[in-house]
Amino acid sequence: MRILVLLIVLCISGSTIGQSDDEKQLKAIYDKALTDGKAYEWLNYLSNQIGGRLSGSVEAQQAVEYTKRQMDSLGLDRVWLQPVMVPKWTRGTPEFAYIETKPGLTTNVPICALGGSVATPDGGLKGNVIEVQGIEDLETLGAEKIKGKIIFFNRPMDPTKISTFEAYSGCVDQRYSGAEAAGKYGAAGVIVRSMNLRLDDYPHTGSMGYGETSIANRIPAAAISTKGAELLSTTLKLNPDVKFYFKQNCRQYADVESYNVIGEIRGSVYPNEVMVVGGHLDSWDLGDGSHDDGAGVVQSMDVLRLIKASGYKPKRTIRAVLFMNEENGLRGGNKYAEVAKSKKENHVFALESDAGGFTPRGFSFDCSDEDFKQILGWKSLFEPYLIHMFVKGGSGADIGPLKDEGLVLAGLRPDSQRYFDHHHAENDTFEHVNKRELELGAATMASLVYLVDKYGFQQQKKVKG
Amino acid sequence: MRILVLLIVLCISGSTIGQSDDEKQLKAIYDKALTDGKAYEWLNYLSNQIGGRLSGSVEAQQAVEYTKRQMDSLGLDRVWLQPVMVPKWTRGTPEFAYIETKPGLTTNVPICALGGSVATPDGGLKGNVIEVQGIEDLETLGAEKIKGKIIFFNRPMDPTKISTFEAYSGCVDQRYSGAEAAGKYGAAGVIVRSMNLRLDDYPHTGSMGYGETSIANRIPAAAISTKGAELLSTTLKLNPDVKFYFKQNCRQYADVESYNVIGEIRGSVYPNEVMVVGGHLDSWDLGDGSHDDGAGVVQSMDVLRLIKASGYKPKRTIRAVLFMNEENGLRGGNKYAEVAKSKKENHVFALESDAGGFTPRGFSFDCSDEDFKQILGWKSLFEPYLIHMFVKGGSGADIGPLKDEGLVLAGLRPDSQRYFDHHHAENDTFEHVNKRELELGAATMASLVYLVDKYGFQQQKKVKG
Repeated sequence: MRILVLLIVLCISGSTIGQSDDEKQLKAIYDKALTDGKAYEWLNYLSNQIGGRLSGSVEAQQAVEYTKRQMDSLGLDRVWLQPVMVPKWTRGTPEFAYIETKPGLTTNVPICALGGSVATPDGGLKGNVIEVQGIEDLETLGAEKIKGKIIFFNRPMDPTKISTFEAYSGCVDQRYSGAEAAGKYGAAGVIVRSMNLRLDDYPHTGSMGYGETSIANRIPAAAISTKGAELLSTTLKLNPDVKFYFKQNCRQYADVESYNVIGEIRGSVYPNEVMVVGGHLDSWDLGDGSHDDGAGVVQSMDVLRLIKASGYKPKRTIRAVLFMNEENGLRGGNKYAEVAKSKKENHVFALESDAGGFTPRGFSFDCSDEDFKQILGWKSLFEPYLIHMFVKGGSGADIGPLKDEGLVLAGLRPDSQRYFDHHHAENDTFEHVNKRELELGAATMASLVYLVDKYGFQQQKKVKG
Repeated sequence: MRILVLLIVLCISGSTIGQSDDEKQLKAIYDKALTDGKAYEWLNYLSNQIGGRLSGSVEAQQAVEYTKRQMDSLGLDRVWLQPVMVPKWTRGTPEFAYIETKPGLTTNVPICALGGSVATPDGGLKGNVIEVQGIEDLETLGAEKIKGKIIFFNRPMDPTKISTFEAYSGCVDQRYSGAEAAGKYGAAGVIVRSMNLRLDDYPHTGSMGYGETSIANRIPAAAISTKGAELLSTTLKLNPDVKFYFKQNCRQYADVESYNVIGEIRGSVYPNEVMVVGGHLDSWDLGDGSHDDGAGVVQSMDVLRLIKASGYKPKRTIRAVLFMNEENGLRGGNKYAEVAKSKKENHVFALESDAGGFTPRGFSFDCSDEDFKQILGWKSLFEPYLIHMFVKGGSGADIGPLKDEGLVLAGLRPDSQRYFDHHHAENDTFEHVNKRELELGAATMASLVYLVDKYGFQQQKKVKG
């Protein structure tokens, strides 16, 4: 790309002549975010000074204190901590695993314990391996073949899905429920191919559950890197008798107290109508949780700041809610909704950012057709910012428990192509977040919050009276 | 982001029931690109086995030979080299620069010679610095103040431009014409703030010209990293008498022979109607030219392969043209157009990818309103692939010389936020290209080529008879 390309640059930004008030307000928000955003600076601290923030950890508590302190400095009407009991699971010393093709001939492979897994026995676990493409294969195999074996779930994410979240949803059951299902057939342990579209050496952790399985019958479960999975699969094809060894030292403790961190600008006209913008403050422990979900946290905080700084006085109350424990419990989201309901708070809108700090592409909305029709009327305002995707769909895990009739839920939809390269892995780190992309996300969120505040939802008024 | 988010995944990919032939063909192209694309493998070789490919270099020749060999292996109807004389400029040994706040007290700063610049004197150049915000400031200052000084052009890219190309076009005149302009006022040398929206330590090279300035009167010009520029600017504010020293060892040689590399699938119905899809094979020398424009090269090659592999038989002739010398001469683009015109070839469409290997967002079209209207009719076919941006605008530098009445020119428009982080700098390297994003770009290009081939341009038939 060289100088001649200048001649062909797209004139996307309009002039300010003839702009509507809404156009001017959005431009003020985007300009502020791109020239004087705080999101990136906050993320730098969260990621590089605190790091991974697993629920119940010292780092999670540091993140609570840091974000409270930062929100305190913004001149909001109220900042507070909302106590919530969260599970505490620790990884312990690093995991270790190898493929043993014959006694004495071993190849190490990268694994990590899944979040919530039990440890292996102290000496580790070694056994024959059965590769399957999914939970449904277990029934075909039957208990006799499975008993005492290590089950290797190796169904990859489907690369032909354009939304990588769709590819993720197509195979994450292996991670979440694989150990519970295989345990019922007497398996000794479970290895799951990492939820990652790339071939690399990073194992990707994530939550798993044992359902009703008694503690004594829980089997250990680990993720293996995609390259490790390919190696194990190839080795098994050459020699079905290879053994797999892994050792992990994780442990579940009693629940501990933690907090949602909440900052609020009180509405000037309808203070009892609450709009939430949020992300989750906890993260997995392997990386520093920059994309998942440090990005959503700092963007949510910056929404309050951008709205204030752009000179707009919100009619409704806007809260940034930094939820604790999205990753392995959703306790923060549940607690927030429980308290809101017990106080009979009137929530009219909630927006979550929990899909990474990449270039925003749009929003998905969980709402009535009538509300969606109203929202589509705002779409053209976002076109100068290359925000094109307004679709009906889900929103975010943390705001899900707020759902009730008439409430409009929304999720920011950033570009998803790189997300699962980093998701829940050691390489979910600060240097993979681009400052402008993060800022554009914050501005896009703030712009939607502004429009909802200004116009409200017409249909909702009918529903909620 | 955790398991509950699955419930809210957007169902973007449609089922195959009720799909039109065009929908099926686009799906076949995208599926092939995402499961069996070759672009990333080719880029890996170009970037990691060959590296930076400045016109006239050994690496540029290796790239010619490698891409010809790869296209030879694709079973095309014809692959050939088109000779073109190109400028040869070399950087020489690495540049060196420092800010001297007082004798003996110096701070090194990262610089690089601009492409086409003359060297400094053998002992380097040291002088007082005048910071300006643009070429227009020179006249205000006048020759007396400028004579013998080093002019420091420090107008940054405007971060509020959503298209970073627009921000680039707003300040690249400093790089291209700064030395010519300052030289007229007797400046001794020029330092230009790198065209980069981030603050970092990478100087960004790029082409510059001396216009009619005689060789004896040409002054050396270098880019300074954005952090270096900030430091120099701050230092000058504290003490306008600081001196700047730089030494660079670049050299211009006589033109040498090089090649455009061309592969062709001959049209089955209208073989004389030619469609071009291209990128440029040369790159700057600091990085490995992965985004600029290795990506465009391998995407263009993969367009031919994807069209073939999807089972579609093109009616018109499709050529992948890998242009030489886009960066510092555009000789390849000019030569290709010159030959096409001398042979009276009927070019009906040309598409260039030269804006990085990032997630594709759409296309810009340089064409008549009537043709654009027809093109807009195809837009909905691209929505499942999250391609939303169909705008009128420019296309690409290399295909520009082909322009004539009735010809439709187009440029792939990837997400632009990260592009200038890497553009013309040491960090334009392979690891910053995401495999899926690159493949989505190739599929998007192939899909447009398929549609143009199938339907032709109705308006064009009127113009071209």
